[in-house]
This record gives sequence, C-alpha cells and structure tokens, in this order.
Amino acid sequence: MTIPSPDAVQAADSPRIAIEAVSPSVDGGRFPVKTVVGHRVIVEADVFADGHEVLGASVLWRPVGGEWRREPLTELVNDRWRGGFTPDAVGAHEFAVEAWWDDFGTFRRDLGKKREAGLDVRLETEEGLILLEQIAASAPAGAARALGAIVLTLREETDVAARVAGLLAPDTRAAVDAAEHRAFATRSGPFGVTVDRVQAAFASWYELFPRSESGDPTRHGTFRDVIRRLPMIRDMGFDVLYFPPIHPIGASNRKGRNNTLTPGPDDVGSPYAIGSAEGGHDALHPALGSLEDFRALVAAAKEHGLELALDFAIQCSPDHPWLKQHPGWFKWRPDGSMKYAENPPKKYQDIVNVDFYGPDAVPGLWAALRDVVLFWASEGVTTFRVDNPHTKPLPFWEWMIAEVKAKHPGAIFLSEAFTRPKVMYRLAKVGYGQSYTYFTWRNHKGEIADYLTELTTTAPKDFFRPHFFVNTPDINPYFLQTSGRAGFLIRAALATTLSGLWGMYNGFELCESAALPGKEEYLDSEKYEIRIRNWAQPGNIIPEITRLNRIRKENPALQTHLGVRFYNAFDEHVLYYGKPRLADDDSGRVEDMVVVFVNFDPHAAKDAEYEVPLWEFGLGDHETLAVEDLMRGNRFTLTGKNHRIRLDPNDLPFHVWRLTRLSGEA
Amino acid sequence: MTIPSPDAVQAADSPRIAIEAVSPSVDGGRFPVKTVVGHRVIVEADVFADGHEVLGASVLWRPVGGEWRREPLTELVNDRWRGGFTPDAVGAHEFAVEAWWDDFGTFRRDLGKKREAGLDVRLETEEGLILLEQIAASAPAGAARALGAIVLTLREETDVAARVAGLLAPDTRAAVDAAEHRAFATRSGPFGVTVDRVQAAFASWYELFPRSESGDPTRHGTFRDVIRRLPMIRDMGFDVLYFPPIHPIGASNRKGRNNTLTPGPDDVGSPYAIGSAEGGHDALHPALGSLEDFRALVAAAKEHGLELALDFAIQCSPDHPWLKQHPGWFKWRPDGSMKYAENPPKKYQDIVNVDFYGPDAVPGLWAALRDVVLFWASEGVTTFRVDNPHTKPLPFWEWMIAEVKAKHPGAIFLSEAFTRPKVMYRLAKVGYGQSYTYFTWRNHKGEIADYLTELTTTAPKDFFRPHFFVNTPDINPYFLQTSGRAGFLIRAALATTLSGLWGMYNGFELCESAALPGKEEYLDSEKYEIRIRNWAQPGNIIPEITRLNRIRKENPALQTHLGVRFYNAFDEHVLYYGKPRLADDDSGRVEDMVVVFVNFDPHAAKDAEYEVPLWEFGLGDHETLAVEDLMRGNRFTLTGKNHRIRLDPNDLPFHVWRLTRLSGEA
Repeated sequence: MTIPSPDAVQAADSPRIAIEAVSPSVDGGRFPVKTVVGHRVIVEADVFADGHEVLGASVLWRPVGGEWRREPLTELVNDRWRGGFTPDAVGAHEFAVEAWWDDFGTFRRDLGKKREAGLDVRLETEEGLILLEQIAASAPAGAARALGAIVLTLREETDVAARVAGLLAPDTRAAVDAAEHRAFATRSGPFGVTVDRVQAAFASWYELFPRSESGDPTRHGTFRDVIRRLPMIRDMGFDVLYFPPIHPIGASNRKGRNNTLTPGPDDVGSPYAIGSAEGGHDALHPALGSLEDFRALVAAAKEHGLELALDFAIQCSPDHPWLKQHPGWFKWRPDGSMKYAENPPKKYQDIVNVDFYGPDAVPGLWAALRDVVLFWASEGVTTFRVDNPHTKPLPFWEWMIAEVKAKHPGAIFLSEAFTRPKVMYRLAKVGYGQSYTYFTWRNHKGEIADYLTELTTTAPKDFFRPHFFVNTPDINPYFLQTSGRAGFLIRAALATTLSGLWGMYNGFELCESAALPGKEEYLDSEKYEIRIRNWAQPGNIIPEITRLNRIRKENPALQTHLGVRFYNAFDEHVLYYGKPRLADDDSGRVEDMVVVFVNFDPHAAKDAEYEVPLWEFGLGDHETLAVEDLMRGNRFTLTGKNHRIRLDPNDLPFHVWRLTRLSGEA
Repeated sequence: MTIPSPDAVQAADSPRIAIEAVSPSVDGGRFPVKTVVGHRVIVEADVFADGHEVLGASVLWRPVGGEWRREPLTELVNDRWRGGFTPDAVGAHEFAVEAWWDDFGTFRRDLGKKREAGLDVRLETEEGLILLEQIAASAPAGAARALGAIVLTLREETDVAARVAGLLAPDTRAAVDAAEHRAFATRSGPFGVTVDRVQAAFASWYELFPRSESGDPTRHGTFRDVIRRLPMIRDMGFDVLYFPPIHPIGASNRKGRNNTLTPGPDDVGSPYAIGSAEGGHDALHPALGSLEDFRALVAAAKEHGLELALDFAIQCSPDHPWLKQHPGWFKWRPDGSMKYAENPPKKYQDIVNVDFYGPDAVPGLWAALRDVVLFWASEGVTTFRVDNPHTKPLPFWEWMIAEVKAKHPGAIFLSEAFTRPKVMYRLAKVGYGQSYTYFTWRNHKGEIADYLTELTTTAPKDFFRPHFFVNTPDINPYFLQTSGRAGFLIRAALATTLSGLWGMYNGFELCESAALPGKEEYLDSEKYEIRIRNWAQPGNIIPEITRLNRIRKENPALQTHLGVRFYNAFDEHVLYYGKPRLADDDSGRVEDMVVVFVNFDPHAAKDAEYEVPLWEFGLGDHETLAVEDLMRGNRFTLTGKNHRIRLDPNDLPFHVWRLTRLSGEA
C-alpha cells in the first residue's frame, strides 16, 4: 500500500527545532532594528523541539559580509532564551539565532539522574562512549584528538563508577563543546541591525538661520558670522548645529514677510524655495558665502566639538535649474503650468514638487537626489534633517538612505514627518535614524506618560528614535504662547530628560513666543526675514539649558528615551519618572537612577506626595537613599517611601535628582 | 557627478504602498489560520502610502489552486482597513491583501473640494478627462467603451459646472471601477487559511473502551456491542464517539490490572501496547471483531448522526511486526535491547518508540505512518485523536497532516499534548485542528478567566482550538475525587459553555471518581481491564449532560470558545460570563446572549451580586431584558443593572440563561 513519498525526505530535512518570536526584530525581519556602536543588543527567542532532549542555542552576529561571531543564549523560563552581543563598528550588521540538540547534554543529564537513583548504568556508559566517538568523528582535528584520548582512557576503565565520573567530568564536557557537534542545528534569521554612531541616539540640537547671524539687521548674515557664534552654542552644551536650507532662493513667487505674497525688493524669501539661476540643491546661497566659507565653518564647528546638520528639502523654486534641464522630473498641467506645493492647510506658492515616477524620473531624479546628499557628505556633513519625507515615496527613502549609508555608514537622517503614526513609524523602518514626534503637542501629564510608554515598550522601541524639539521655525507651541518663562523651563526639562535627542530653534532660550494671532506660527517669522537677537536679554534661560545639557552628558541613563519608568506623584499636574542605570551583567540590578519631577502648570506652585522608589534598589519601605539635586548641586538623604515635594514655577518648576545607595551599601 | 544607478529602477518598481499587520495571520504567514466552512473570516490590515492620495484596498481569496475572488476592504480609522470573506468549501485556502492608488478617487475628492470653495476648475476638468482617457486605455473592452462614451460627451460640454457634475456622477465612478485601474497595485500575502468542516470547531465527544461494552464482565466486548450503545450516546447529545486504540495488543511485558507488571493469564493489557503477531496499526484486535464488524459499526454510527474517532498512537509493543520487518525504524542499544517508553514520571514497559530519524526511517517509516492514517480514512474514519504528539517531530506532523488533508480535506486531528504552552501551540500551528488543554487543572474562577482570555484574545485565537475534556482514562481530576456529584455538574457546565469542543470519558456521567490513592489515576483503570457499568445508576447526571448538549446545539454562541466576555459577579467562587450572538453585518451589535453563572465551590451555596449586561444591548442602567432559563425552561425579566443570584450545589451549582431584548424593541 506504500505510496512513494519523496516529500517525506524534504520534510525530514526541514528544521526539527522551532525558533519563534525572535527579539529584537521589526516586522518579522523585513526591516533592521537600530542600535548604536558599543551598546549591547539583547537577543531573545523561543527555542524548543519535540521530546525532552537538552537543547543548545547561540546568537550569531556579524557586520554584513563579515565573519560570524557566536555568543551563548541561556534558557530563562518557559522555552524563552536570552543572550546578546555588542557591535564594535558602525554599519549594517545582522544576527541569527541558532539552536541544536545537545546530544551529550541529554546523555549527561540522564546518566546523572540514573546514578542518583542508584541504577545499574554500565550499558549507559557504553552508550556514552559510542556517542563521544560519533562526536569525535565529525570534529575539528584538535577536538577529535582530545575526545579520542578521553574515550581511550574510559574504555580501559572497568569500574563503572569511575567511568561515570569521567563521562560527567567538566573536562569531557569542554572537549565535547570544542567539537562543535550540533545535531539538528537550525538557524532563524538573519535579522538586520543598523549600527549607528552614538550621536544617532544621543545629541542636543540647536537650530538657527545663518542669514540672521550678522548682528546687524541691515546686513545678511554669512557662514563667517556663524563661526563667531560657535563658542556660545557649544558652551550651552549643544552637539549639533542645524540650518534650514542654505541654497540659492528663487525669485518667482517669492514670499514676503509673514508669509505674504507681495514681497518688497529687499525681502529675502523663504529658504525652502530652493534653486535659482545661481544653482540648486548642491549650490550655496551667494549671500551666505562661498564653498570655501562653508568649509571653514564645517572645520570651525568640528574644532568646537559641534557638527553641522543640513536640511534636505526635496522641492524646487520655479527658478530651479532642474525645471529646464529635466522637465520630465515634474508634473505639468495641460496648459503647461505646474501646481505649487501644498501641505494642507499650508500653501507653498513659491515651491513646486518633483514627480518621483515622472517620465524621466527613474533613475535620473532618484540618482540626482542621492547625489545631492553624497555631495554634502563629501563636504563633511553627514547629518540631514529631511523636510516632509512623508510626501515622498517610501521606496525612495529606503533605497536612498541605504545608498548613502553604504558610503557613509555614520550618516544620520532625521525625519520631519508630522503625520499619522503608522507613516511616521514606517519612515523609521525604511531608514530614518531619528524622527520628529508629537512631543510638542503633549502638554498634559497623562499624555506624556502614555506617549513615552508607547515609544519605549511597544514595537517602535526597536526602530524609532524620537527627537524631542521644543519648538521649530514652523511650531510656536500654543502652550508657550501663554506660559511665560516657566513654560520654557518645563518643556526644556521634559525634552532633555525624556529623550536622548532633543532640539531647540533659537529664540527659545530667550522665551520668545510672539505669535501670528491664533496660529502656531511665530510673528515676523524668521522663515521670511532676517531676525537679530540680543542673547544676553534678561530672563533668558541659558543657564538652565546649559545645566540640563551637562546633566545629560554626565548621566548615561538620560542618553536615550528607553528605560523610563513612571512613578506615583499624587497631583494631576506633577509628572514623576525615573531613568535607571542598570548593571552591565544583564541582571537588571539598578546601579543608580535619575528621577525627575515636573509641574505641568506654569502658573501655580504644586505640592505633591510621591513615592521614593526604594524597591528599585531592593530596599525596604523604611530604608534610606542618597540624593543629589543635579540642578542645584546640594545633597541630602530620603528615608522611607512617602514624601512631599513642592514645585514652584516662580522658582523652578522641575527637579532632577540622582538617587544612589548610601555609600558602603551593596 | 551622476553615478549609474540601476538599483533605483528596482527600488522604483518595489511597492509604493505599505501593507502591514495583516490579520488574521500566524507567525507572519508561516502557518495557516483556521476557520470552518461557512464562517466569515474578518481581514484587517494597515494600508498607507506617502502623500495624501485616496487609496483603495481589497481582500483576494481562493481555494489553493483556484480562482481569486475579491471583496472590498474599507478604512476604519488610523490607516486600519477591514473586510472579510466566507469560504464555501472545506480545504486549504489562501488570501492576500491588495492596495492601490485610486487616482480617480483622489481627483474626485480634490475637484469636489475646489468646487465647494468656488474656485475656477476648468483646467481641473480637462485633467479629469485626460485621466479618464488614460484609465480607458488599459481597461477591458466593455469598460473602455463606456468610459470613452463618457469622455466624448463631457468634451462636447462647454459649461464647466456641467462637466464637473459629469465627472463627479456616480455613473462615472462606476465606469472607472469597472475599468479595474489600480495604480501602484501591491499585494501582501498570500496568507494560508485552513478551512475545516464545522465539526472541527463544534463537537461533543464521548470516549469508551469497546472491550467494556459486553454488559458481562466475563465477556470481552465487541464492535457489535458498541452498536447497541449508540442510541443512548446519541440521545445524550454527543456527536463523536472516540475509542482508545483498537489494534492487536502485545503479550511481551503486558501490563496487569492497575498498571502492575505481573499480569494474570486473563488480563487484557493496555490497548496502547500496539501490535502483535496478529498485526499492527492497520489491524484490528481480533477479540473486538472483524473488519466487517468495524465497517458495520461505522455505518451504524453514521445512521445515528455519530462519527467515530480513532486513536493514533505512534508506538509499538515489542511484538509489533515492524520490529522484525524494519529494525532500522527503531533505536537499539549496544547489547541489542531497546529502551521502553517513558513520559516522566510515567513508565510504559510494554511499549517501545520508533526513531523518526533512524537509519531506514526516512521516508519508509514516515510514509508507513501516514498510510496507517490513510487506511482508516479509507474506512470512513477521518477524526484522529493523536497520543503524545509532542514527543514526535514537528516536521513529521506538518508533513503528515498535509498529506492526509490533501486526500481527505475533512480530516481532523486532535493533539493530546499536555506539555509546555509553546509546544502545544506549535502543534496547532503545524496542523492540529483541535488540542487538549490545561482546562482539567483550572479549578478556580480566576484561572479559568485568565486561561480563556489567553485563548480568545491573544495569538492562539487564530490557530488553536481548545478541546475541553472533563476527564480522560489518564486523568481522574483531584477536584472530582472529592467534589461529589456537584463537582461533575460544575465541570460539565464549564466545558459545555466555554468551548465549542468538549469531551468526557465514560463513567463521568455516573460521577465515578475512585482513585489510586494520591494519584490522578482511576482505581481499577479501564486502561488495564474490562469495566462493566450500570448506566441507570442513581445520582447520574445524564439528564443534565443531555440538556447542556441540547443548549449547545440551539445556541451558536456556544459553538466556539471565541467571543466569551467575563462580567462582574461579586463572589470569589462565582464565575459569570456571556457569549453574545452578533449581527451578521460586522457592526458588532449583540442580537442575544447566553450568560452562565458557575459556583466553583461544590460544597457550599453562594449568593453573589452581579451586573446584568444591559450595556451590551445598548440599554441604560434602569432598563429591562428578557431572560430564559435554559436549564429549567422558565422565563422572566430583569430590570436594572444590579441583582443577586444564588447557586446551590445541592440543587444546581450553575445557571445558563439566554438574554434577549423585550419583544418589540429594536
């Protein structure tokens, strides 16, 4: 009755061991997870098979195209295994989970049990020696010799107890391990890992318009003017200096002050209207300086420990050279005109968009855009804030970012997409290393806690790095328009302590908030005119920002959004959270912890009962922790779980403390 | 500077539209989801792209190898889309999600907005006509003609308002739909769907040993004896009659009564010691009857609306013919002996196991095992309870079940794996349509609620069908050993109302619970001897079981474990849950609902406050529902949300009610 069954051969060759639920992974491995160099990637997987045999498992990892390295996975509970690896280079990596039947492990376990039960195990020892011979047969030469010697010795041993002891000896186990015998070995993966430089996850950004840096309202600022500002920016603790576009600005349909459509002859226009007869995306606005000037700025910034970030805005003024050179990269209307750009309700009459799938756009336009980025990278800029990426095709970003990172593995792309959450997340999946977020509009305690919980405990934790901007040239937050100085302190405290990445657009440190009435736009917006500021203006919060940036540098727990834990503070306006620094041994032990209290009400002092997180340190409810107030510098202790705190917006609406065990305690 | 960029062409050909998080799917599509014929499969997916264009989406589905059919997906909120399909045949199916840019939808939306804003849209109407021509160019002939006629008419129209009206007319939209123009169309999938017959999800099982059916302790029962029992089993409301193995039983190492190793000459042995000189897995125990007798039983059962389920236990008595015919299918010890089977702490001295990866096992053993199943399927049995599948390779099951279902799409396999949860779930993923569960050991209110919540709201809901056995020949639950009759009623009520699949091993209806002291084993277990029972024994719960099975048949909500909702009953022993029957229109409207109250304490009456689920019917807290007591048959009404109930184990420790709106209410 037997039917020929060649498929059974194939089935028997398929993996006997199940490897499921590998973590971290993004969409089952479709996209890479993200980490930064030197940070440990914790890997987990469900590993199991039929029967009751002992299994072994490893994580294998490598730079793409490099040699595999192997680290052990150990079983936690309920078939879940854990291990990890620490990439030591920037670039594309991958890992896989491997599992196998540990034949000798099963033998040892069973032999040990039977010995304990006092059974006769002579036959078992014979089976053990046969197993060792089988393992030796496929082992590397050195390991085979070592195993052979063990077998020879044990075969000559006639005393069963001595044989058993030899089979169970650690040396025998080590010899088997060296033989790399892995029956039914199965791999799951590879899973991609993007290893970025540290600045992809931890950086403080400062944004300015170079044209406003002359100190004189009648003179257009230059790159040389910016060089003079560098020490001040660095002294505030910033790492990245970011400019809106610095390219030639079109004259057609140029915008006037406050986004009007009737510019005067001296109006400078919006820098987002990129391109004129003087060049496009790879040219510099002549009024800012020459390429030599720009190079001088890049070099000066580097000397100050700052890096430049440029704006990559894929759009053209009607005067951009591409319109004439490559009409097939644009979508023309039946009457020969072109639609201007819109991002409802915003209208950009001075801008037209390219058509990524236009008649000549593939590959010409795609390559040209990539080459713009490569050009600036060749000039020493490898951080790009990308304007409205959600209105350009996702496959373009996936391709373009991979192309750039293949040549410049340290390249960082920041997505400026304020849109639906799944689109924002997808942009991160296809390659963006940083993302603008909804932070700016989360002004209530519960909103912030909910948003951070989503970002740190659900799928995005593996691929989405939030960048918390407190303001931008486009966003003059309603909250800050009425909050006064305290509101600026509140938002700075939240951004600097909740996220590894935070940023501010200049003027924030001066508590600027004058708005176009009823809008989230700044009055006399710098997008359309030159603005000269007095950086020493009374009431500025430069000292507080400086202090917060220093606290970030000194406390690794603040260099990522991950790991935040929210605690009870019994007032609806007071948010209270901790960022622990954990031991290096994966034990989860808390070494120390930064805790932050923020009063969300900029107009009234709040008293709140709160709980000292003694339990995080393994301490009882009546024990004591040492506290350092990181904003004020004083030290004290807290004994017992329940305390009260006061947060006064007229003084300081937040506190940042470092909690440690009392010195001498384990 | 341009570098040749052929990869950009490939990138531009890759999907522009993202389709993510398709549901239902198992491990990203690695395994099929399960449903039964005639049941609607609700499909959801995240669908989105760059920009703000209107998208369209469908679910495509078919029997594997058949023609694709198409059903619409509609957008819910936040880029989530939903639709569904209803398979009308048993067998392997698949579905895919397709999404595309609805160019004409985008055009209509924008044209409508501009018309409302009072803008001049002459140029837009021209663009619309060009778009219609483009769509017509790639349309099927009929649709192209219809579109051509529309364009011709509208081109002759000089009044812009009339043109706009024509472009926005439903007929124009319908003509475009018929053209099947789907720009940037992208598919995700296919995702497998196993469509089983209804009995895979809804059936009541009765287990007996045919050898105990003679009515005379001195005579071995036969298949003919079982035929006499069929009306009684059917009258209790059972659908499936399941036998432990019915094959020849080995003599070597035969077990005596109560699992002793010293059988007397008349001891019948364990039917799990399969195989003797009289044959193996495809033979019948001669004392039970001939193949003709078996065929008569299959036919008689069918006449009574019962189907037979057989036990597939892959193991051999030392006397099984395979040991001599195929020594390479077994693992021999160095001294020529063989290890007997163990499932710690149980020892099976009368059984040896096959070696699936033995020297001659592939494909010989694999095919032979499959052919055993195919043989019984050819005899009219297509439901198999599989013994200890977790100790046999997962790839074997995936292959074997697929082979059998290719020939017998209605075949059902029940996994008897009491092991770690991930292994149990994996067995379901690789093909088991039903699974034994931990139900038997969940004896507290919270345990049952937690377990059902896991089964009905997490990943297993799409592939794991729990089969709730109240007892088995191997499990004489500790709870029932001390609960008395009330405990049997409690467990029967839970199993019959919580799961579409439930089963009992005979004796349960007589409240049998005598145990081997301190063990979960029955005293004088039928596994090792013939047991004759008096089915009319006083105190039996046959009427209650009969009633519960009838309630299951009359209430579709009870024909699956899915959909259960737990409600508040304020007593630690009282579990209270509802199973709603929802409207067919996917609106989620509750048509009616079965609610069940169970007192988990078999020794004491409980009073509990509970909440009438008025809100599930869209009613206010002071409104009224009609109630039918399904166990007792009386009807009444409940007004208001808070009531009290009494559950007395001396009377009936549970209630089953059907709640409906008062007649005349919407």
